[in-house]
Amino acid sequence: MFLTASELSRFASRYRANLMNTISGYKSANLIGTRSVEGINNLAIFNSVLHMGSKPPLLGLLFRPLTVRRDTYENIKSTGYFTVNAVDKTIFRQAHQTAAKYAQDTSEFEATGLTEKFIDGIPAPFVKESPIQLGCAYENEYPIAENGTLLVLGAIKTIEFQDTMLQTDGSLALNRAEIVSSVGLDGYALPTLLERLHYAKPDIPTRSLEDGTQEN
Amino acid sequence: MFLTASELSRFASRYRANLMNTISGYKSANLIGTRSVEGINNLAIFNSVLHMGSKPPLLGLLFRPLTVRRDTYENIKSTGYFTVNAVDKTIFRQAHQTAAKYAQDTSEFEATGLTEKFIDGIPAPFVKESPIQLGCAYENEYPIAENGTLLVLGAIKTIEFQDTMLQTDGSLALNRAEIVSSVGLDGYALPTLLERLHYAKPDIPTRSLEDGTQEN
Repeated sequence: MFLTASELSRFASRYRANLMNTISGYKSANLIGTRSVEGINNLAIFNSVLHMGSKPPLLGLLFRPLTVRRDTYENIKSTGYFTVNAVDKTIFRQAHQTAAKYAQDTSEFEATGLTEKFIDGIPAPFVKESPIQLGCAYENEYPIAENGTLLVLGAIKTIEFQDTMLQTDGSLALNRAEIVSSVGLDGYALPTLLERLHYAKPDIPTRSLEDGTQEN
Repeated sequence: MFLTASELSRFASRYRANLMNTISGYKSANLIGTRSVEGINNLAIFNSVLHMGSKPPLLGLLFRPLTVRRDTYENIKSTGYFTVNAVDKTIFRQAHQTAAKYAQDTSEFEATGLTEKFIDGIPAPFVKESPIQLGCAYENEYPIAENGTLLVLGAIKTIEFQDTMLQTDGSLALNRAEIVSSVGLDGYALPTLLERLHYAKPDIPTRSLEDGTQEN
């Protein structure tokens, strides 16, 4: 099927959103934990967490236009902190349920049965059930003029993960913790690792990384 | 395992990069096609394509700092166009190989055996083998002050995909085309759909979307 932008613009809003949210491929699935100044804990699923860089360790979080109430954004701005928690196969339904429009004084932890966890120095709730838990501090934001979205940058301050995932080269085997990926607006998928590959070099055929060690 | 930012900063650069590139979860895997003003076609794998919005249809593409030669970026700036092509199970090794540092006058299409395809109005090569092919026009860019990366926005002008993927609500079933997701710097995974869920509402339990129709 072939479509132009003008054909696309004539689709119903929901149909177009479903198509647009799937055409860029699989996304990450993370729960963002925040706390309001009134002490209400908030939890929200995001599929727009972006690795921004390793030095310094930075994540991006794309927010939809702030034309409606965005508790997560307000909490990040007022406390300066948020947590990022990977979604695995055991909690993806609860993670999805955090997207419901609960009242502002309702904690999505209580509503969904996920468990709050706190550590010193990070005034935002982690998700105890999550296999990867990142504590982040607000760093900056970039308003996107073209559509009113907002890219919020966070500096990673703490990292906690299940030991079994760690490989000798520092990478995490996401499949060992059954971490899921997100598909469009409402789908969840469990990836199976096909292969890790050596860094590509001209004139050397693509090679599988079977021993876990990259040549530089 | 628990790590603070300062412990993280003492790791070797490659180890830290491997960890940082996996902790945010699964990523999309796309090939970016561009053409230089001299007519050399370029193809490069990216795992940083971000859905930015549906109205207008916008994608983001995060570039690492432009301190080394970035053919893809230079071509986008000089021609105004690029293509985004989904990576599936049949081409992921060739897609990975595009990351090799080929000479500037070498086309990654020729080097990897992937097939160029052109359509009217988009002066950039598509990947014929790819199950989803997007033609995009450069829209804007946002330099990220914190680490020198660059977020480039593209407006989607054309969309082509395998008919078998289209579902009644406009979303694409990525699994039907065996589209892969990216893990860290060198891994490729094949996701299996677990479930699609109804839009979450307070006080209604999470429900599977078995009939393919969302209630609004």
